[in-house]
Amino acid sequence: MQYPLSPDVKPEFCTTGTFMRLPASRENAKLAILGMPFDTAASFRVGARFAPQAIRQASMTLFPYHPINKVYPFDDTNAIDIGDVSVIPHNIHRSYERMEAAVLDLMKGGIIPIGLGGDHSITLANLRAAAKVYGPVALIHFDSHTDTWDTYYEEKYWHGSPFIRAYEEGLLQPDKVFQIGIRGTLNHPGDIDSSHKLGYQVITTQDLKRRGYSDVIQEMKKTIRDAPCFLSFDIDFVDPSFAPGTGTLEVGGFTSFETLEIIRALPNFNFIGFDLVEVLPPYDPTQITSLLAATIVHDFASLVAMRLRQTSG
Amino acid sequence: MQYPLSPDVKPEFCTTGTFMRLPASRENAKLAILGMPFDTAASFRVGARFAPQAIRQASMTLFPYHPINKVYPFDDTNAIDIGDVSVIPHNIHRSYERMEAAVLDLMKGGIIPIGLGGDHSITLANLRAAAKVYGPVALIHFDSHTDTWDTYYEEKYWHGSPFIRAYEEGLLQPDKVFQIGIRGTLNHPGDIDSSHKLGYQVITTQDLKRRGYSDVIQEMKKTIRDAPCFLSFDIDFVDPSFAPGTGTLEVGGFTSFETLEIIRALPNFNFIGFDLVEVLPPYDPTQITSLLAATIVHDFASLVAMRLRQTSG
Amino acid sequence: MQYPLSPDVKPEFCTTGTFMRLPASRENAKLAILGMPFDTAASFRVGARFAPQAIRQASMTLFPYHPINKVYPFDDTNAIDIGDVSVIPHNIHRSYERMEAAVLDLMKGGIIPIGLGGDHSITLANLRAAAKVYGPVALIHFDSHTDTWDTYYEEKYWHGSPFIRAYEEGLLQPDKVFQIGIRGTLNHPGDIDSSHKLGYQVITTQDLKRRGYSDVIQEMKKTIRDAPCFLSFDIDFVDPSFAPGTGTLEVGGFTSFETLEIIRALPNFNFIGFDLVEVLPPYDPTQITSLLAATIVHDFASLVAMRLRQTSG
Amino acid sequence: MQYPLSPDVKPEFCTTGTFMRLPASRENAKLAILGMPFDTAASFRVGARFAPQAIRQASMTLFPYHPINKVYPFDDTNAIDIGDVSVIPHNIHRSYERMEAAVLDLMKGGIIPIGLGGDHSITLANLRAAAKVYGPVALIHFDSHTDTWDTYYEEKYWHGSPFIRAYEEGLLQPDKVFQIGIRGTLNHPGDIDSSHKLGYQVITTQDLKRRGYSDVIQEMKKTIRDAPCFLSFDIDFVDPSFAPGTGTLEVGGFTSFETLEIIRALPNFNFIGFDLVEVLPPYDPTQITSLLAATIVHDFASLVAMRLRQTSG
Amino acid sequence: MQYPLSPDVKPEFCTTGTFMRLPASRENAKLAILGMPFDTAASFRVGARFAPQAIRQASMTLFPYHPINKVYPFDDTNAIDIGDVSVIPHNIHRSYERMEAAVLDLMKGGIIPIGLGGDHSITLANLRAAAKVYGPVALIHFDSHTDTWDTYYEEKYWHGSPFIRAYEEGLLQPDKVFQIGIRGTLNHPGDIDSSHKLGYQVITTQDLKRRGYSDVIQEMKKTIRDAPCFLSFDIDFVDPSFAPGTGTLEVGGFTSFETLEIIRALPNFNFIGFDLVEVLPPYDPTQITSLLAATIVHDFASLVAMRLRQTSG
Amino acid sequence: MQYPLSPDVKPEFCTTGTFMRLPASRENAKLAILGMPFDTAASFRVGARFAPQAIRQASMTLFPYHPINKVYPFDDTNAIDIGDVSVIPHNIHRSYERMEAAVLDLMKGGIIPIGLGGDHSITLANLRAAAKVYGPVALIHFDSHTDTWDTYYEEKYWHGSPFIRAYEEGLLQPDKVFQIGIRGTLNHPGDIDSSHKLGYQVITTQDLKRRGYSDVIQEMKKTIRDAPCFLSFDIDFVDPSFAPGTGTLEVGGFTSFETLEIIRALPNFNFIGFDLVEVLPPYDPTQITSLLAATIVHDFASLVAMRLRQTSG
Repeated sequence: MQYPLSPDVKPEFCTTGTFMRLPASRENAKLAILGMPFDTAASFRVGARFAPQAIRQASMTLFPYHPINKVYPFDDTNAIDIGDVSVIPHNIHRSYERMEAAVLDLMKGGIIPIGLGGDHSITLANLRAAAKVYGPVALIHFDSHTDTWDTYYEEKYWHGSPFIRAYEEGLLQPDKVFQIGIRGTLNHPGDIDSSHKLGYQVITTQDLKRRGYSDVIQEMKKTIRDAPCFLSFDIDFVDPSFAPGTGTLEVGGFTSFETLEIIRALPNFNFIGFDLVEVLPPYDPTQITSLLAATIVHDFASLVAMRLRQTSG
Repeated sequence: MQYPLSPDVKPEFCTTGTFMRLPASRENAKLAILGMPFDTAASFRVGARFAPQAIRQASMTLFPYHPINKVYPFDDTNAIDIGDVSVIPHNIHRSYERMEAAVLDLMKGGIIPIGLGGDHSITLANLRAAAKVYGPVALIHFDSHTDTWDTYYEEKYWHGSPFIRAYEEGLLQPDKVFQIGIRGTLNHPGDIDSSHKLGYQVITTQDLKRRGYSDVIQEMKKTIRDAPCFLSFDIDFVDPSFAPGTGTLEVGGFTSFETLEIIRALPNFNFIGFDLVEVLPPYDPTQITSLLAATIVHDFASLVAMRLRQTSG
Repeated sequence: MQYPLSPDVKPEFCTTGTFMRLPASRENAKLAILGMPFDTAASFRVGARFAPQAIRQASMTLFPYHPINKVYPFDDTNAIDIGDVSVIPHNIHRSYERMEAAVLDLMKGGIIPIGLGGDHSITLANLRAAAKVYGPVALIHFDSHTDTWDTYYEEKYWHGSPFIRAYEEGLLQPDKVFQIGIRGTLNHPGDIDSSHKLGYQVITTQDLKRRGYSDVIQEMKKTIRDAPCFLSFDIDFVDPSFAPGTGTLEVGGFTSFETLEIIRALPNFNFIGFDLVEVLPPYDPTQITSLLAATIVHDFASLVAMRLRQTSG
Repeated sequence: MQYPLSPDVKPEFCTTGTFMRLPASRENAKLAILGMPFDTAASFRVGARFAPQAIRQASMTLFPYHPINKVYPFDDTNAIDIGDVSVIPHNIHRSYERMEAAVLDLMKGGIIPIGLGGDHSITLANLRAAAKVYGPVALIHFDSHTDTWDTYYEEKYWHGSPFIRAYEEGLLQPDKVFQIGIRGTLNHPGDIDSSHKLGYQVITTQDLKRRGYSDVIQEMKKTIRDAPCFLSFDIDFVDPSFAPGTGTLEVGGFTSFETLEIIRALPNFNFIGFDLVEVLPPYDPTQITSLLAATIVHDFASLVAMRLRQTSG
Repeated sequence: MQYPLSPDVKPEFCTTGTFMRLPASRENAKLAILGMPFDTAASFRVGARFAPQAIRQASMTLFPYHPINKVYPFDDTNAIDIGDVSVIPHNIHRSYERMEAAVLDLMKGGIIPIGLGGDHSITLANLRAAAKVYGPVALIHFDSHTDTWDTYYEEKYWHGSPFIRAYEEGLLQPDKVFQIGIRGTLNHPGDIDSSHKLGYQVITTQDLKRRGYSDVIQEMKKTIRDAPCFLSFDIDFVDPSFAPGTGTLEVGGFTSFETLEIIRALPNFNFIGFDLVEVLPPYDPTQITSLLAATIVHDFASLVAMRLRQTSG
Repeated sequence: MQYPLSPDVKPEFCTTGTFMRLPASRENAKLAILGMPFDTAASFRVGARFAPQAIRQASMTLFPYHPINKVYPFDDTNAIDIGDVSVIPHNIHRSYERMEAAVLDLMKGGIIPIGLGGDHSITLANLRAAAKVYGPVALIHFDSHTDTWDTYYEEKYWHGSPFIRAYEEGLLQPDKVFQIGIRGTLNHPGDIDSSHKLGYQVITTQDLKRRGYSDVIQEMKKTIRDAPCFLSFDIDFVDPSFAPGTGTLEVGGFTSFETLEIIRALPNFNFIGFDLVEVLPPYDPTQITSLLAATIVHDFASLVAMRLRQTSG
């Protein structure tokens, strides 16, 4: 074997480091971090291919215990970091195949994936894998955009369309889809209606601020119950002040404190997978976006650990 | 004609791009963006001359529809972008003349200007134009400073004095002037009294947080009624975390969410002009200040569009 | 004397400028700024040695009057800036001796020090000096970490241990120690218990948000009363969005507005010293961390000025 | 027409400003600037889509006259800036069609294009257009890489392959192709041989330094003579110190002085088109890469002006 | 006296630190550093007002001995740093008066000033002072621009005109003026001729590279002889790679090694003053421009020390 | 085992990634990369603890073949990357022990180490290990400083003293020590004499430029012959323009082209170890310093591969 690995085996932007120095495998793993550094479906700023690397680096300052949720998220779950999927920047479909295969492999083995994007197009690969294992799933989607636009220059697959494609492919239970944090200017009123037409619940930033997160979570719980549920988190849910390193920023968003509060209030869902997308390290000079992302991953893991304890209890 | 234009015709820091790619002219225009890149009246950091360019660039990611105010701000108003006034960095008075002339020209034609500063000294040019068309006007002024200091090194015209000069020149209805968001250390207690002496209302950051914006807006509406009203927005009203790219930062300010909330609650004033000042791109490495500024401009335009609809309704 | 001073007389990172251009001495001084640029006890990011310089530079835009506390913090106290202690980056104990001596000298002269760190290890030097003059003191400690870890690689003196060392050395009245703002992931639940075992009060970020600062301050006042009290402020109390320039960031923290509110609500304690630590200029590209730090120093000084007025009244 | 233009008509990263404020059309134009912001064929860093905007902005400080070549490059050629091709980030082939069409249109009208990339994949579009008008052309290619790799993950069209694809498509006269400045580590010795096999001349950085540029240019002139010749300039020809804002940097390159010297020594070729590729503004914090690129464009234009004078003389 | 000093006494951008921690006064001083932070005569980028502060900070890592020139530049000359002239950003003429007065005061006392600009307009103040003491002087001027443009928007005093104004005011011996390093695009051929018409020698970057610096210095020595000579150094003489932090960059310049070589070859002129202008710290993220500037100041001082030794020897 | 590893097992700044994705072990390894992230012996800027991580990341874009030296440096040597030594930032002696042990272990196993610093103090640990295996060794030392200062604040072990300590400990053959590239201001003439007194050869930047590198290398070869030789490379040998990310910059240095030329001319020495020190990632916003460092490591490895081929041939 020749070193370094040829870029044809592993792209140069795929790191060899792991999240919090987790091992690549261990027995009885219930949780896996994997990098999904595909970003060429973005329409404006690019560079999320460097996010898995940056988030892993930021994770080095996290500690093993979650004092609010009172779990060891990564040890209670025997978590592993399986590295990055070798995506192909120039071909979204072949990248989808590779990402879907990697996630499917984990899910079939009873391992819950936390995918580190990449742009938001990667979620379609995640949902395809999920549907193969669990059938159509529920979705909790944090974002400032609905990502249910149809085409962009007549292209159907881009980072603004995963949730319309997922609908068309029957990957979701539409009445169990919640899009939370939507805000910002639109092409026209139909932008949000396109989500409504699919049967999704749209909860804008203003809605969430007005109602409070407990109320929204209660509604989600009543609707989703214990259906297998995927959580997709676009970092632009958070205000640009707290997460400048992203591609399509929308001012007027949530603080990091508010963000963690709402995530930490989600323990009793049946999560079968997560992703965290649209972190762009080249636009994150102080690395606070990557650190926030790493902390959210820590929180995702703690949700899994708590669930494991409940269900094994 | 020789290309590029000689700097004597147009300074090198004047861009040829337009806000959201608006045209330079169209029929029945009711709203115009214009750049006012004069910044040599600043006393500390400089560089606001690059703000019109940066704000226009940031505007490229905005979309045409305002989902909260339910208008197309730029199409409902047939908005145009007439480019930058050719200010002269080395001469404030000649710059004032040119800026005043450009604004006057718009106002006389029934077009509401949104001026992109530039430092805060440019507001005096705007108010001179406004007073010629409308007589003394009301003023809603968002800022962390009152800008009613008198002289600086015996110089009367600088970015800390526009609102005392405007008073002296009779451009304002002093009982209809509100200065909102004032905070930070002072030379002495008299700094704020200088505004009080002119008859202005000063609402500090603490006042606004305590009272809530609805209460303050109600008071303003009761006082200003339908008087012709100018809105001047200094980006340092917002906290440095959300707007680091400015010249005289004051910590302890407003979030971008709070800022948009208060602006969006202002639809029923008779605005005859706007400006947005003190964005300093050289100090804005993540460009979030410019994006916030562009979004505020979008909101200003939506206020105009809503008013048009009301009055034409 | 040869110029520049040999680094053996004064390290190269020690500035000659002063906070707000204060003089190095004046009569009847009651308050002194001093730099304590020791940072080699840090375990992750380093660079706080440049903080005194950066905070002083940021202080240049502050004005003499504090409009909320209604004092002239630096003139009412005849404040001085005595420059930086010549710490020795390669030797914590000799640095401690020099820092303690400088602070002791001030305290004996009836001058309240505001120490500009440096990493948090410097507080031990401050408390040693304080205990020599006042006996064991009360402590109000703002931070996202308790800094009561014991050893790091078997090293006892580092920036994670000052408050366990201070306990062991009998420098504190343990029942009068409040650690406020604690948050973030932990090694294990024992991390916080280590503070409890010493008898300290730990008020987490969540506690403080839930209870409100008035409630917490009331409790502190009831407990501490008029005991001589040291205030130690780690800038990572504040959220990374407002203070990116620090060494061990914890997301989900306080805004600058919240931070100033709580500090300004502390006038009636018997403060005998302050420090502000863990500002890292190399990670602060927009300098907002340094400006926030300088503003907090201005607030600390105003607390002293208010107290002076009360006690002299 | 709705403003802003829908991203489906013009991507958000396409600016409305022009190079040196040139007009979009004028009579008897012999030279045109056009943006080709396609960058999704890159394999590592991305972001060249913002290069046309950044280079145009940097061009604002250039002046009309070239004192060494003694021409007015943009007026002697009646140069225009026709804006950006509306490339589609998610589809290289449809982007190629649009780019080729735009360039073809210019070339058929007797206008020499200077294309602002974009990554190096765009050159294939340029050469396709050129071959349609002129038949197979000569090529002078400045770069630290030969870009004659075949596939990447079995993908044939990416920024490392334009010059093997061009060969296969018969767009070039292989014996009249010069690749200049090649350096850096390789996959294996065959990397450079792949160029030799196509019949191209490879002149490494070491060769060029040793021989001197006059010698190399003489050889090129003797070989190319007056064949229609395309010049493709990858900014990574220059050392990273002078051009940090690019995607695949190779240390040990040329200074900006050396770079301009060699370009300025090329007046007597029959250039029928130019491009300048791989400027990545997100990695160019001091903007010196964009300024160097703009200056090189000014030099390209002067080559055209000098040629026009020669041929019209 | 109130602290901080009112901005009316000293602008906020004036530091209290000194170059290499020099004292403000000492006996028998022959050399003085002074800050001249006036920058509002700039036509494009601004911010040189922060240069004196940044250069002084960068000077902290310099050592007292100059091993090539074999002198202690600051001790052999008893050098002092008298701080910054309190310039008035809004008034060039009043700023000129203050700068001229400060320099005159030094020169009359037999102290050679090294002025830290500021933009290049400050040199006029320096030359006015020099001419009052020495009559018309010789000038060695390093720059990429001649700065003999006449007006800018009909304004006569700006940073592009000091050397035409100095001519008109009779401050120079025109046949003893050398402008070295000129390069870059021009408005028209007349730009350089304007210098020729005044009788100045213009040595372009190409000339200097071709002839070598020894040849040029020899010519200067033969011409200037021992006439009182002012040296004005615009940092844009150096290539942007080595000095990115400046206002009007011209690529294709000199390396720092070449720059120091030529300065160090100038010992036997009768220098009566120096300035170093156009350092813009806001555009200097790695601070290498300030460090280069500080090193050049160290070299200027060593020229003075060598001369002192020669003349006193 | 708990994840992440406790910082007491491995500091947080130690990465898990490897150079060019090399394996941690393979058979018949002749070369090893190891990180030595100790930086608390620095006297001015700090942060070299992050260098191993940054250099490894930069190495991702290097390819396996060295086209000038015509070897596969990492495969011809079966190179490995054994990760970082767990240094202890707060204790130089215990850090030395750990570093020495790691290097000794490699050397005893016939593996040549390339240590990634850290500050220059780490070289003492390397030389201690080397002397244990090989007896006193020859040294080729590239640097702008001699690092033969004695104490700093009476501390003997810091990054300015490794080469005087090594002498005292008898680790070097003094007549076979070459210090190359020395430049910059000094405390006094004795600074360089201190090297001379130890018997070292000092070749300044000026010397090297004047003589040319072939001449210098010839002299070194004649002197060192085939003695076991350590190569220590301080990145500040290179000019700050090419390597801004370092701690004590000296302007007027070498270009990256010159640097690689001289290293590549060193194949026929008997190198038994290498280190590359003083890369400071927090001061390297464009990452060109780390890339240059990684390229130099690639060149070091190629020297080993060439030697292996010679000696095995």
